[in-house]
Amino acid sequence: MDPTVLRELLEGVRRGSVDVEAAAERLSRPPFVDTPGGRFDTHRALRQGIPEVVYGERKTAGQIVDAARVLREAGQAVLATRVTADKAEQVREQLPEMDYDEVARLLWLGPEAVPDVGKGLILVVTAGSADLPVAAEAVGVARRFGNRVELLQDVGVAGLHRLLASIDRIREARVLIVVAGMEGALPSVVGGLVDKPVIAVPTSVGYGVGAGGFAALLGMLTSCASNVSCVNIDNGFGAAHVATLMNRL
Amino acid sequence: MDPTVLRELLEGVRRGSVDVEAAAERLSRPPFVDTPGGRFDTHRALRQGIPEVVYGERKTAGQIVDAARVLREAGQAVLATRVTADKAEQVREQLPEMDYDEVARLLWLGPEAVPDVGKGLILVVTAGSADLPVAAEAVGVARRFGNRVELLQDVGVAGLHRLLASIDRIREARVLIVVAGMEGALPSVVGGLVDKPVIAVPTSVGYGVGAGGFAALLGMLTSCASNVSCVNIDNGFGAAHVATLMNRL
Amino acid sequence: MDPTVLRELLEGVRRGSVDVEAAAERLSRPPFVDTPGGRFDTHRALRQGIPEVVYGERKTAGQIVDAARVLREAGQAVLATRVTADKAEQVREQLPEMDYDEVARLLWLGPEAVPDVGKGLILVVTAGSADLPVAAEAVGVARRFGNRVELLQDVGVAGLHRLLASIDRIREARVLIVVAGMEGALPSVVGGLVDKPVIAVPTSVGYGVGAGGFAALLGMLTSCASNVSCVNIDNGFGAAHVATLMNRL
Amino acid sequence: MDPTVLRELLEGVRRGSVDVEAAAERLSRPPFVDTPGGRFDTHRALRQGIPEVVYGERKTAGQIVDAARVLREAGQAVLATRVTADKAEQVREQLPEMDYDEVARLLWLGPEAVPDVGKGLILVVTAGSADLPVAAEAVGVARRFGNRVELLQDVGVAGLHRLLASIDRIREARVLIVVAGMEGALPSVVGGLVDKPVIAVPTSVGYGVGAGGFAALLGMLTSCASNVSCVNIDNGFGAAHVATLMNRL
Amino acid sequence: MDPTVLRELLEGVRRGSVDVEAAAERLSRPPFVDTPGGRFDTHRALRQGIPEVVYGERKTAGQIVDAARVLREAGQAVLATRVTADKAEQVREQLPEMDYDEVARLLWLGPEAVPDVGKGLILVVTAGSADLPVAAEAVGVARRFGNRVELLQDVGVAGLHRLLASIDRIREARVLIVVAGMEGALPSVVGGLVDKPVIAVPTSVGYGVGAGGFAALLGMLTSCASNVSCVNIDNGFGAAHVATLMNRL
Amino acid sequence: MDPTVLRELLEGVRRGSVDVEAAAERLSRPPFVDTPGGRFDTHRALRQGIPEVVYGERKTAGQIVDAARVLREAGQAVLATRVTADKAEQVREQLPEMDYDEVARLLWLGPEAVPDVGKGLILVVTAGSADLPVAAEAVGVARRFGNRVELLQDVGVAGLHRLLASIDRIREARVLIVVAGMEGALPSVVGGLVDKPVIAVPTSVGYGVGAGGFAALLGMLTSCASNVSCVNIDNGFGAAHVATLMNRL
Amino acid sequence: MDPTVLRELLEGVRRGSVDVEAAAERLSRPPFVDTPGGRFDTHRALRQGIPEVVYGERKTAGQIVDAARVLREAGQAVLATRVTADKAEQVREQLPEMDYDEVARLLWLGPEAVPDVGKGLILVVTAGSADLPVAAEAVGVARRFGNRVELLQDVGVAGLHRLLASIDRIREARVLIVVAGMEGALPSVVGGLVDKPVIAVPTSVGYGVGAGGFAALLGMLTSCASNVSCVNIDNGFGAAHVATLMNRL
Amino acid sequence: MDPTVLRELLEGVRRGSVDVEAAAERLSRPPFVDTPGGRFDTHRALRQGIPEVVYGERKTAGQIVDAARVLREAGQAVLATRVTADKAEQVREQLPEMDYDEVARLLWLGPEAVPDVGKGLILVVTAGSADLPVAAEAVGVARRFGNRVELLQDVGVAGLHRLLASIDRIREARVLIVVAGMEGALPSVVGGLVDKPVIAVPTSVGYGVGAGGFAALLGMLTSCASNVSCVNIDNGFGAAHVATLMNRL
Repeated sequence: MDPTVLRELLEGVRRGSVDVEAAAERLSRPPFVDTPGGRFDTHRALRQGIPEVVYGERKTAGQIVDAARVLREAGQAVLATRVTADKAEQVREQLPEMDYDEVARLLWLGPEAVPDVGKGLILVVTAGSADLPVAAEAVGVARRFGNRVELLQDVGVAGLHRLLASIDRIREARVLIVVAGMEGALPSVVGGLVDKPVIAVPTSVGYGVGAGGFAALLGMLTSCASNVSCVNIDNGFGAAHVATLMNRL
Repeated sequence: MDPTVLRELLEGVRRGSVDVEAAAERLSRPPFVDTPGGRFDTHRALRQGIPEVVYGERKTAGQIVDAARVLREAGQAVLATRVTADKAEQVREQLPEMDYDEVARLLWLGPEAVPDVGKGLILVVTAGSADLPVAAEAVGVARRFGNRVELLQDVGVAGLHRLLASIDRIREARVLIVVAGMEGALPSVVGGLVDKPVIAVPTSVGYGVGAGGFAALLGMLTSCASNVSCVNIDNGFGAAHVATLMNRL
Repeated sequence: MDPTVLRELLEGVRRGSVDVEAAAERLSRPPFVDTPGGRFDTHRALRQGIPEVVYGERKTAGQIVDAARVLREAGQAVLATRVTADKAEQVREQLPEMDYDEVARLLWLGPEAVPDVGKGLILVVTAGSADLPVAAEAVGVARRFGNRVELLQDVGVAGLHRLLASIDRIREARVLIVVAGMEGALPSVVGGLVDKPVIAVPTSVGYGVGAGGFAALLGMLTSCASNVSCVNIDNGFGAAHVATLMNRL
Repeated sequence: MDPTVLRELLEGVRRGSVDVEAAAERLSRPPFVDTPGGRFDTHRALRQGIPEVVYGERKTAGQIVDAARVLREAGQAVLATRVTADKAEQVREQLPEMDYDEVARLLWLGPEAVPDVGKGLILVVTAGSADLPVAAEAVGVARRFGNRVELLQDVGVAGLHRLLASIDRIREARVLIVVAGMEGALPSVVGGLVDKPVIAVPTSVGYGVGAGGFAALLGMLTSCASNVSCVNIDNGFGAAHVATLMNRL
Repeated sequence: MDPTVLRELLEGVRRGSVDVEAAAERLSRPPFVDTPGGRFDTHRALRQGIPEVVYGERKTAGQIVDAARVLREAGQAVLATRVTADKAEQVREQLPEMDYDEVARLLWLGPEAVPDVGKGLILVVTAGSADLPVAAEAVGVARRFGNRVELLQDVGVAGLHRLLASIDRIREARVLIVVAGMEGALPSVVGGLVDKPVIAVPTSVGYGVGAGGFAALLGMLTSCASNVSCVNIDNGFGAAHVATLMNRL
Repeated sequence: MDPTVLRELLEGVRRGSVDVEAAAERLSRPPFVDTPGGRFDTHRALRQGIPEVVYGERKTAGQIVDAARVLREAGQAVLATRVTADKAEQVREQLPEMDYDEVARLLWLGPEAVPDVGKGLILVVTAGSADLPVAAEAVGVARRFGNRVELLQDVGVAGLHRLLASIDRIREARVLIVVAGMEGALPSVVGGLVDKPVIAVPTSVGYGVGAGGFAALLGMLTSCASNVSCVNIDNGFGAAHVATLMNRL
Repeated sequence: MDPTVLRELLEGVRRGSVDVEAAAERLSRPPFVDTPGGRFDTHRALRQGIPEVVYGERKTAGQIVDAARVLREAGQAVLATRVTADKAEQVREQLPEMDYDEVARLLWLGPEAVPDVGKGLILVVTAGSADLPVAAEAVGVARRFGNRVELLQDVGVAGLHRLLASIDRIREARVLIVVAGMEGALPSVVGGLVDKPVIAVPTSVGYGVGAGGFAALLGMLTSCASNVSCVNIDNGFGAAHVATLMNRL
Repeated sequence: MDPTVLRELLEGVRRGSVDVEAAAERLSRPPFVDTPGGRFDTHRALRQGIPEVVYGERKTAGQIVDAARVLREAGQAVLATRVTADKAEQVREQLPEMDYDEVARLLWLGPEAVPDVGKGLILVVTAGSADLPVAAEAVGVARRFGNRVELLQDVGVAGLHRLLASIDRIREARVLIVVAGMEGALPSVVGGLVDKPVIAVPTSVGYGVGAGGFAALLGMLTSCASNVSCVNIDNGFGAAHVATLMNRL
């Protein structure tokens, strides 16, 4: 249950537009729904500020459809991450009202425009063009969570002038998400330029000792700029979640 | 140079209490100072919101004394981390006006009371008593950076009732720092209870496969609560820096 | 040879229903059978309490058929693990009397109902829906070994209320198997709630530093609940074997 | 609070030997005690079957003394693990009634004889003499928890006759703890000889690729005997805890 | 050039059956042949006792054909390892006189019977049936290098009676190759039973922490039987080479 | 912008053949080009001596075509690495003037002959024939960057005579690139024979503990010949870049 | 019991010089001795060709003295490895008849001259002078086991002429032990020069990625000379054991 | 033998100032010297451009004295690395003519001024003050090898203005050595600013995942600036050797 939905329900009771019995029934449901596909946490938005999101990686199209229906029934927005184009196609055969972004691999159902509840700009910065899919996930998720978001691409540290040319936008941001693979040095450089928290996202872009994103992750965890914290490799979603909560502070 | 110092200087010029020439000289200094011990970044407070802090681990007492003097000269607060009791003793023979906290291993020079510039409470939570030194570093640093900070100790996940007994304090916090060694599960549980960002700090407390804190770090990076971001093992200082910037948002 | 089969044989000799020569021949067979596909250990049930089980991962359908026939000849129940749907199909073309469970990837031949020789309930608990295949293997194997087994799904630590809602079932169990991927924190939390042994099974569910299940494994080995022991990643079978022996104590 | 203590208290109330008010006060205490050294979990024995044990590795003698007093006040047995001889000496200067075992590094306070509440024999088996300290910890802890325990030493797999000479004792045990460093092969061999659960404890005995006990741990996790589960390296205490709960089944 | 070929050539010169000029030309060739596919070492048999063998893993069928022709021209036996069935088929379309063993993935050209130049029996022992391909490579290569070889399969340590039933064959061997995956304990047990050198070959058979064969490798390197030496994971060929040289001592 | 292009432009202005306005427009462009596919660094040749090269691994054919056009517009040579044959085919359908080398996986557009601006010979040496693709990348890139390059193949350390037979060519080189997989010993041996810098390139050729090229990398980093420096696994391109800059010194 | 001792005993019985009862008593002892310090394997020489050797690393001087007495009583030669100078001093206060070699850290008791029962020369080769302690252990142990042994020092691959200057001695050896740290390349080069088995011993000599000897170990396991097998890091003793058994073939 | 010494000798013969017999004797010495401490490579300067250097880490003071004497006898300059202050003191008691630099841990014997045989400036750049010892080793060694060297300290990437303030000196250098710990990002940034080869040296400065220097090493190997090559962690000596050879090109 979403805090807004909860407030509207109680407001309806106060105004008499909602029947007491109906409201009581609605509120006495347990804070989760048991389905064959799992136990859905329908009170997460109340507890954690954002609703449960469907992690699509290991789910079949059928499981995603079921999850979407459960969440919609519970009065929640529906968002699924890491959904391949093929799987999205299958889901939309059954739920054609869902939208899909192939680069970000996001699938969602909800109001076209999300009210902007963040207090400032979230800037997502990438080191190279291969980091785009992870950055796009962060951008898309943060937008669905009600933030103003911009993307600054391809400003890796081996060509500092590309980064410094955008210094004003960097300093304007309220929260920064910096996405990089290879040696993962970009969050250190960006962190050194701002007085805002920087969320670093290593990507699995790389080969040799860079394969899998571990070099980038280690680089970010040992960043000499101490305003940097880190999420798991390729975890654009987690970065967007953390950034959203920061942007609401 | 600290933003407050900068504003006071300009204000002094406006009011006539500061000579234009003196102000010009002060402002035309380069943004760092070269000393035999290194090139100090004296404009960090302007750029990153907090001043350069002395990392004491590999420095001799003499190097810390020199650094303290350079920073004081530059009109900055002085804070040194990871200073052992022995080394602190040596430093204070030369700079007796410095204060020291042995558990947190912090050494500082500055006004006794720091004005509270954060907007809410930073709560530092630990899983076990062995995590205290890292938590104390986070508490001490965050206080020196102008935050209201509280400590909630010893609420590891194997005894959930200890954690749940403090649920109100946990939900009151504006920013949470969760410090844990071993399997590092506490940030996941805390993250699931709040709608605020959680900064996870793994500690090097553990033995066998837990030695060095890597198990805790991996646990935090793979947290199933997605409002968790992570800093390096034992990095109480970095957590306090990030939390401070969040608390100013 | 199964202890029950052995006792029936000797009982038959005592009652005269089994010929002494036939029994002698039966008992003088060596404790294994050499076949082109390997040396089968036909006395394992006598030594270890459960019969040899066919590990299907690297075997062809033909090898599984041969193994099934050898074991059946030796008077043993037949159970094969990690058999894909395709391979199972091929095996059942030759041995249509075998049963198959696709989620658990188990294939078996034997009496429909297995007598319940365990002394209590084995509860299999999972953190997320992606852990189901491993949990299903544990459930299916433990049932074939004569235990009463229940499954509690999707109660990961980021939504504690889902777990606490089932606290009575958790406390009722005689032995618990807890299956989790990602940070593997669930066994610590469950272990802290019960006075029974907890068998932890890490799963290879995860990405980035969670890929392959190593983070979950490390989390379980360093659990702050000390009534937890651990088996290999994805080893639902081993967990069921250990739980079975515990449940017979 | 210990289940026995709880029952005696209620029995005293029933018989009138305990005042209702006193019993009520005693029972209304919260399930933990907050001290400067941490939040002690005084209800663990009720929840997990054994009381909280003090992990001595990172504690000063003073902290151990404080913990011992808190636990004694709460009516619990006191047991501290990983206490070096020096530290034990300091503790006993203040609490001379405590006993100490140097090989096992255990320190305890309590009745000389612990009633045997286990149902059978726990056999602790070691591969080599260097594994003794870990095995001794397991033996000592399991005895304090009320089990009959025996030790079978130095029966590593490179000299099978030493192991096979003790086969009867091995088969007599109700629960087995097998302690080994180096390649950690002993649990596989022992597991293949019994129909009981085997708890494997890797030790940090070894050099080169065996250093730290990781080779032994991997060997135990991949054991071809599937009745083996595993605890962390050198975790004799955890093995004794798990074995105790099994022995009470 | 093979030592036998060299001796025959010189013997021919002595007897006059070989022309001095022809022999001189033959002997003045450089000790390698440069081809587009690489520089073949045609004197390896003289230096190292066995001829250059073609490692087929990364070679195309065409490259294997070319190599076979170069080696045949140089008067050497031809043996290629790690050749898949498909690739072997393609090679044999051009060189139908080559023989192929699918399990061992060996392809060779040469006399049907190789004279037995070893002094005793090489026994290849496997722990489980999944280790067969690596063992078969060792058997096949050792036979082509002129040894008497036998295979003892499926005698893993969890069923010691299977191993002990073959103790006489084990003690008869002059050199032993022990092939095992999982925890790799078999070489330790076999090593403890014989006074001969044991060559351990870890296999990549396993899953979870056993994946890739690293657990088996570590187990073999830390073997408590010190008459064990080790080759790379899945390196049946190397084991056969070492065993061949030992068997000629 | 290439230094040569820059000089020609200015020379044109001096001679009057280039209009001042046109030159000014050309020179006032920013040092990068923003495209949907990324921000191209068009001044890299001025800063780093070689122009930006397109890393083809994660790019689609379409992205490579776009990049090629941007670079050509900016007056730069176009070179793309790690382009598979399929992808190259698709690119050449749109840009048929591009050349392709399948072994080296290089795709380029530019003058057929590149002026030789290096001062000596770059010799690329390989240990085995499987290292050829990486070596070919180094050869091809170094040629496109204006160097005289030769290739010495298949001279691994297990057959020293093959290496020593080419000692004169090795000593003639001004810069050496040594490419090896497996144990990566060749750079140590070559380094010990020359007084020139040796650039070591580990390859991912190998299996078991050699898989992925890590053993080779470690061998090269710990080389007992101290005139060896190292690049990432399979990084023939980086080796060629470094060698080019050395060869221009 | 040593095979020689056994034969002499039986010979004595045959000749009448040994009483039948005494011989019977002697032969009916179990094949191990239980002492407080462990279960000694007194039949190892019969089974494995060499007697049990005392691994001194984790033993106190007192434990070594006890072990020496047990072994002497059992009629065996006494040899202890990894004994530091201090510990050796303490042992010799009680057993002054023991000999000690400080470089090799070996302590032994036995006949001054050991009969040479090997069939040829064992050559121990080292890459650098820091490898000497491990090589000295191998030399000393092999001598005590009855071999002719020589040492060739400091012939690492970065100075090939030092190695090639000793080619005749290298080719004369019947068995080679090659000891190297850093990149561990020497066994590959030596292996390529001989037709004998090469036992590679990595040493923990190195720093950075070479620390602990892992780079050397990986280099040896992936050696391109396939007549190389490997023992654990710093395991000079194991190499000598394997070489001894080879030299008796 | 040094090339200069060789030329002077031959020149002396030509001029008659050196006796033919004496020159012949001098030239007929083998290219190494066997001493109890090892086989010294006295022709390295001829082969590799710089003479053999004594690696002091595992050598006693006595071994260093012996080595110094052998090298001096052979007419070579003497340089020892990684010599602690204590050890240096002991060496200088016997060889008081040696010089010592405590920060760089270098000990040498030779002409006070070394002729400058390099063609340009080698610039050594460090990220933080803790990197100084490794940088000082590089500076000292490069000076002893005849180069002009400068040091630019403490210009880590989190404070870019410190680095950019020195851009002219960075661009003036002919060869750059960049020394950094933590995330090791500095070589990428410096590499992006110059058209010269950059030699990256990771240092073991760091804690948590940065401990030992592995994060820095991985960062440097995966640098997005491709003109960077890398040496082992803390290998200031190797960097100086490579830089010296480059500077002579």
